[in-house]
Amino acid sequence: MRLPVARPDEVDIALLGIPFDGGTTNRTGARHGPREIRNQSSLVRPFHHTSLTSPYDLAGIADCGDAPVNPVDPADSIERITGFYHEVAAAGAIPLTAGGDHLITLPILRGLLRGAPRALIHFDAHSDTYDEFFGNRYNHGTPFRRAVEEGLLDPKRMVQIGLRGAISDAANFDFAKAEGIRMIFIEELMARGVADVMAEAREIAGAAETYVSFDIDIIDPAFAPGTGTPEIGGITTFQAQALVRGLAGVDIVGADVVEVSPPLDPSGITALTGATMMFELLCVMAQATARRGG
Amino acid sequence: MRLPVARPDEVDIALLGIPFDGGTTNRTGARHGPREIRNQSSLVRPFHHTSLTSPYDLAGIADCGDAPVNPVDPADSIERITGFYHEVAAAGAIPLTAGGDHLITLPILRGLLRGAPRALIHFDAHSDTYDEFFGNRYNHGTPFRRAVEEGLLDPKRMVQIGLRGAISDAANFDFAKAEGIRMIFIEELMARGVADVMAEAREIAGAAETYVSFDIDIIDPAFAPGTGTPEIGGITTFQAQALVRGLAGVDIVGADVVEVSPPLDPSGITALTGATMMFELLCVMAQATARRGG
Amino acid sequence: MRLPVARPDEVDIALLGIPFDGGTTNRTGARHGPREIRNQSSLVRPFHHTSLTSPYDLAGIADCGDAPVNPVDPADSIERITGFYHEVAAAGAIPLTAGGDHLITLPILRGLLRGAPRALIHFDAHSDTYDEFFGNRYNHGTPFRRAVEEGLLDPKRMVQIGLRGAISDAANFDFAKAEGIRMIFIEELMARGVADVMAEAREIAGAAETYVSFDIDIIDPAFAPGTGTPEIGGITTFQAQALVRGLAGVDIVGADVVEVSPPLDPSGITALTGATMMFELLCVMAQATARRGG
Amino acid sequence: MRLPVARPDEVDIALLGIPFDGGTTNRTGARHGPREIRNQSSLVRPFHHTSLTSPYDLAGIADCGDAPVNPVDPADSIERITGFYHEVAAAGAIPLTAGGDHLITLPILRGLLRGAPRALIHFDAHSDTYDEFFGNRYNHGTPFRRAVEEGLLDPKRMVQIGLRGAISDAANFDFAKAEGIRMIFIEELMARGVADVMAEAREIAGAAETYVSFDIDIIDPAFAPGTGTPEIGGITTFQAQALVRGLAGVDIVGADVVEVSPPLDPSGITALTGATMMFELLCVMAQATARRGG
Amino acid sequence: MRLPVARPDEVDIALLGIPFDGGTTNRTGARHGPREIRNQSSLVRPFHHTSLTSPYDLAGIADCGDAPVNPVDPADSIERITGFYHEVAAAGAIPLTAGGDHLITLPILRGLLRGAPRALIHFDAHSDTYDEFFGNRYNHGTPFRRAVEEGLLDPKRMVQIGLRGAISDAANFDFAKAEGIRMIFIEELMARGVADVMAEAREIAGAAETYVSFDIDIIDPAFAPGTGTPEIGGITTFQAQALVRGLAGVDIVGADVVEVSPPLDPSGITALTGATMMFELLCVMAQATARRGG
Amino acid sequence: MRLPVARPDEVDIALLGIPFDGGTTNRTGARHGPREIRNQSSLVRPFHHTSLTSPYDLAGIADCGDAPVNPVDPADSIERITGFYHEVAAAGAIPLTAGGDHLITLPILRGLLRGAPRALIHFDAHSDTYDEFFGNRYNHGTPFRRAVEEGLLDPKRMVQIGLRGAISDAANFDFAKAEGIRMIFIEELMARGVADVMAEAREIAGAAETYVSFDIDIIDPAFAPGTGTPEIGGITTFQAQALVRGLAGVDIVGADVVEVSPPLDPSGITALTGATMMFELLCVMAQATARRGG
Repeated sequence: MRLPVARPDEVDIALLGIPFDGGTTNRTGARHGPREIRNQSSLVRPFHHTSLTSPYDLAGIADCGDAPVNPVDPADSIERITGFYHEVAAAGAIPLTAGGDHLITLPILRGLLRGAPRALIHFDAHSDTYDEFFGNRYNHGTPFRRAVEEGLLDPKRMVQIGLRGAISDAANFDFAKAEGIRMIFIEELMARGVADVMAEAREIAGAAETYVSFDIDIIDPAFAPGTGTPEIGGITTFQAQALVRGLAGVDIVGADVVEVSPPLDPSGITALTGATMMFELLCVMAQATARRGG
Repeated sequence: MRLPVARPDEVDIALLGIPFDGGTTNRTGARHGPREIRNQSSLVRPFHHTSLTSPYDLAGIADCGDAPVNPVDPADSIERITGFYHEVAAAGAIPLTAGGDHLITLPILRGLLRGAPRALIHFDAHSDTYDEFFGNRYNHGTPFRRAVEEGLLDPKRMVQIGLRGAISDAANFDFAKAEGIRMIFIEELMARGVADVMAEAREIAGAAETYVSFDIDIIDPAFAPGTGTPEIGGITTFQAQALVRGLAGVDIVGADVVEVSPPLDPSGITALTGATMMFELLCVMAQATARRGG
Repeated sequence: MRLPVARPDEVDIALLGIPFDGGTTNRTGARHGPREIRNQSSLVRPFHHTSLTSPYDLAGIADCGDAPVNPVDPADSIERITGFYHEVAAAGAIPLTAGGDHLITLPILRGLLRGAPRALIHFDAHSDTYDEFFGNRYNHGTPFRRAVEEGLLDPKRMVQIGLRGAISDAANFDFAKAEGIRMIFIEELMARGVADVMAEAREIAGAAETYVSFDIDIIDPAFAPGTGTPEIGGITTFQAQALVRGLAGVDIVGADVVEVSPPLDPSGITALTGATMMFELLCVMAQATARRGG
Repeated sequence: MRLPVARPDEVDIALLGIPFDGGTTNRTGARHGPREIRNQSSLVRPFHHTSLTSPYDLAGIADCGDAPVNPVDPADSIERITGFYHEVAAAGAIPLTAGGDHLITLPILRGLLRGAPRALIHFDAHSDTYDEFFGNRYNHGTPFRRAVEEGLLDPKRMVQIGLRGAISDAANFDFAKAEGIRMIFIEELMARGVADVMAEAREIAGAAETYVSFDIDIIDPAFAPGTGTPEIGGITTFQAQALVRGLAGVDIVGADVVEVSPPLDPSGITALTGATMMFELLCVMAQATARRGG
Repeated sequence: MRLPVARPDEVDIALLGIPFDGGTTNRTGARHGPREIRNQSSLVRPFHHTSLTSPYDLAGIADCGDAPVNPVDPADSIERITGFYHEVAAAGAIPLTAGGDHLITLPILRGLLRGAPRALIHFDAHSDTYDEFFGNRYNHGTPFRRAVEEGLLDPKRMVQIGLRGAISDAANFDFAKAEGIRMIFIEELMARGVADVMAEAREIAGAAETYVSFDIDIIDPAFAPGTGTPEIGGITTFQAQALVRGLAGVDIVGADVVEVSPPLDPSGITALTGATMMFELLCVMAQATARRGG
Repeated sequence: MRLPVARPDEVDIALLGIPFDGGTTNRTGARHGPREIRNQSSLVRPFHHTSLTSPYDLAGIADCGDAPVNPVDPADSIERITGFYHEVAAAGAIPLTAGGDHLITLPILRGLLRGAPRALIHFDAHSDTYDEFFGNRYNHGTPFRRAVEEGLLDPKRMVQIGLRGAISDAANFDFAKAEGIRMIFIEELMARGVADVMAEAREIAGAAETYVSFDIDIIDPAFAPGTGTPEIGGITTFQAQALVRGLAGVDIVGADVVEVSPPLDPSGITALTGATMMFELLCVMAQATARRGG
């Protein structure tokens, strides 16, 4: 978005990248997401066409660069990312991150300053609450289970929106059900509509500090083909924008857009979609900052 | 779908491929459809996310390989395919086929065991009831006219859903109208909605043995660009899935997904869509088998 | 559309191309639009599937070739195009043009025979009423401001449909507001529906001679990725077709389809969409011609 | 090449297209070759950079359109093509053809005026002298065997240059060996060099009327990926141009460039290569025409 | 290559795949190499065009499937691969492997039966004898250093052919130089020619048991764009085939083709090249097996 | 190349970009060249593999950003670029530029400090000494004619290497011949070899201050498809690297790499080639700087 570059202690909201896909079980490529999202963001201008306001007028915002990763050692990467986000949080900046695969949300949550378990509004085709894969407990299908187990998230204040796609075992959703995580499948979303579903989501999050995680694969692969685990039957980008605008009023303390995979995106529209969704998130985050007196 | 390989006499439902596009009048490539659908099907897992059941628990299902074809002789191919499906039917298996261009439905129908003319629920942008092309009566625009003429299908129990696109002659639909085939154009489908249209389709098929033919080009080319005769203004994959789920209760004796053309599908989403639609069909077919005591 | 080639004085409606993108501020390529639209139009047949009539039966129609352009001198190109369209208009033909970037609409309007300022129905993601870019007043973001200033269009009879996307300055829409141009943003279009919006558009145009400009980027980039300034959150091609059919009854004196950029369109669906929208426009233009006794 | 369009009786050399790939055993798409070669030929200008002469100054040359084909009936297509070339030959024009798959060379040879069996200089990765495939004797692997059997070609005056690639049976070359067809494999071509090999080729053809067939797959797939049966380890386009220039002095009575398959050619360089090789052939053919007093 | 599937104890030479790219420091995708190489190998036929013999007549050969890997845990993958190759070796089969990134060669070498350190003929743009990357000692830039350190390879009997490309540190080649590994840079290869260089390579390997590792990136990216670390200025596929044929007489006890990355290979020619190089290796390995009385 | 960013007065050699293609007569896209070359340059490391030295140890080098351009006004762009390069030259930095189309070389030469007309070593498929196009005298086919006319270059010290491709008029080379510019066509280059040709080039330049212009289209489109005017029959990247290394000893006062067009480069190898050629030029320029005591 042609933003200035700055240190986290100079801003209210820090745009960050995590070029990591070591948690990907099938089709990799999300490590190149931050670069292409930055590239395509040159097409995104500062003023929102509905509000005619710019987030840059509401809050201090800059591109604070990429988190350190180790491309051949996922465990080491998780540690490095956690440390990096701890520094960002300590500097007082709220992170808006371009991934990377979905495993990155775990070290981001670990890096935030400790407090009460947080709420989560989670847009995704997949629940990502599996226990393990090949005996491995840290991959892009497990971050939210780990985060609940570690007390980083409050399952009663978690909502997952847009779930769909065949699953490997009928028991895959048992953890989420047992913990009381609210799962809204695509059929329910389409039947009720975006406004109604987001009203419920805001109610679930309530006044709690809330993290927002946006997996690009909630969007249909026609609109976002460049992703590792595409599921047909998804939402349009128009609906995606409406979902994010429905976050208005939520106390957002961090957000991410993950699973944009440029090698699978020949026409570049997935990265463009990722960049635009980053902008939509930035608008609601800047409003939240302004409300806090940021 | 990472399925075992088996002989037709070992299964209730046989997944088959027909790598044939000798009936294609313009852009070929559907001969590579079965291979790419198999490739992409590795992303499709066994349990349906709405029912949380697996078709593999309801019926014996396996990949029984490809029908023999002669890539440089359409007439010879039709004979070989007919013979192959006759064997499949004689072995007691219900075929679910990945095409291939739409001409393949004719030899499949010929190969099924003789009985009363069957019902047809046909999803497609095109009626495929032309009489001839360049003097040729056997191509991907004519299979359903031939099937009616040969007594394989009962036109009073035929419904075509999703028709659209400019046509070469105002008389193109005269045969279908004269025979009483019910044509539901895209405008009607969009206005009435999937549930209402499928209620009518189930009524048309009634209790008859029903064949289901799914041409990928009913779906909009944004979602399925890899096809020989794309027509803009189509349905989404979400609607396509709903259409197929609306087949619940129909006595399906065979089904196909045709016109997936990998050379025209650079991002692979058409083959993924084809594979997922195969899975949705498999779910309703397995239910039908279970009902029959299969 | 496999049309005959003719001179403008031999036809009622002249299909024309303008291979020009010298007004493009970012991603070029629209200069190759006319060629690819012609290529893909070989898939478009003559009879509309809803009316079962052919525009070629209602009016004299032919491909009258490309306007002259100078690929390395935008100002010279504008003059050449103006002259060319003046000849077309003098010959009595109504032009339907395949662009080219959106700047081409200005010399087309200049070339039409002088009369009262005309009405405009404008489908686009962008208002294209900027004043300047880099100090330059003639580029693809400014044609409609220039046309109003030059008295070619009556701002009170102008409607812009489908606007969206972040903008560079909150004042970008001030000109349009001040002049009374009716702007219908995507959110309003989606909420009210196509039929309602087009009823208003027809009312705005009234009985005035009306020019129709269709920028392909009103359509979502999932359906039309091959364009210079894509904006996510757009309409489907089904909606686009409905919008154009909603022009029935309008006194159309010229139309264009612009901003199709083949180098950004690997699967060719944007050019196919452009060709099909040309056909839809041709149908309503031929009806208008028939009404006039053409 | 931005050529005028004319009838065969108006020209010395007729450029023709055959949009046919019904003889293709594996990956189709060559039916779109003529269109894309024409498209890319807009980049080819009239004067050869080494001779600084233009073939259009030496002979009457025009684009005479496409031969009729039946896309769903190979046998019918062969008859139609034969008839078309018979008319071209009767009109006194020498054909230079853009294919299409390699089977088209058979009906072209049948269509030429009868006389003594002709010589053949054949550039190709494959010998195309198989007997049958799936029991079928007319496909893109058999044209030269059929042509020898039918007395259209004199095997003693045939040379095949650039052969390579694993074969399905050790006996595949037995026919060519038995008939005395000279086969120059890629290893010999690379070791001896183009000049030496072409000297031999000219000697084999001698003063006989000679047909030249250029299969694009003699060129390495790095330079020409868009072809149905690519074989790695081929020649460069620089070598290909030198091969064709080595035809100077041969009495060429017809030529073709075959197996350009646009759907497999995402960057368009294969069609560009095809168009440029057409131009190189045109230069030597125009020289031959000028020598004859054409 | 349309091969039968078998267990390692049923064959002399086992074709295997390792779908692993967890050792890749930059652009991933090689995990999909085995699948696409198998896909493209359907174009490769059994008889070599120069020898007119088939490797399948010289040795028992079959596809023995893929090694187990853990896509999100490189260290675990290395252990699993080592165990798998130990079983293959114990069953008496010689492995020919399709990678995967270059780290896979280390567990393959570990899995082979222990004996004297082996010779290595290594075709590659990169030496892959780095010590570490980001503190990590096991990635696709280090396998040959580890293999020397572990006594799996005899550095005096190692030759690396085709090296090129800018390096991160002038000391990168110090290990190879100190150990006496013979490095033949691209400039030397081009100046001396393939035959001369391979004569030296055979001399270096001598009568020792020799492993052959072929990194696809020795080939120029024009011929093989689908690879993670492309370096321009490479060899042609014709030269690559000649290099492998120059292995005739070497006592090969295992070989691999690595770093084919399908997501970076839109036209598929890299996978085709990989499949063809597998076939060329198979031919020389079958000869070696036949010499041993296999 | 992951370089630091700096002002021209802080460096010996300034890497610059000119995102301009307003001089392109046919296929645009070179305006995106600088961005993609920077992207791909992340794969290029600092030490040359033959010299094992790094240019960054020989001279002060940094990325000094892009020249200002006006995308919709070529004439204005030329003025802005000239001014920008005048400042670079005044700051004492030697420019190495990533284009942009070839017209950019004219304002670069104008911007350099005045002195004696300079020598030029020019690698290109095209002579670019046309007089005009459509009456326009400033486009990517004319820069070297204008530069000679303006006294910026000494035609007796100009050499053009790699020329080829059909031309629009036999007189196209008359200017170059009349002025004594040495033209080395591709046939001569291939026959004599790189070393011999570069010896002559060094002799022509002599001790004069020399500008080096490298048009990516000297390289064959198999290696560099992403360019506006591709000509088959070009050189390999290996030869291209050798050509540039042959500049050792020349007194280079500026250089550019032009006509890299990312929209025409689906696999990215053209941008990679551009980045690598930039690095090779940087190496010889840094040597020249070191010789001067830089």
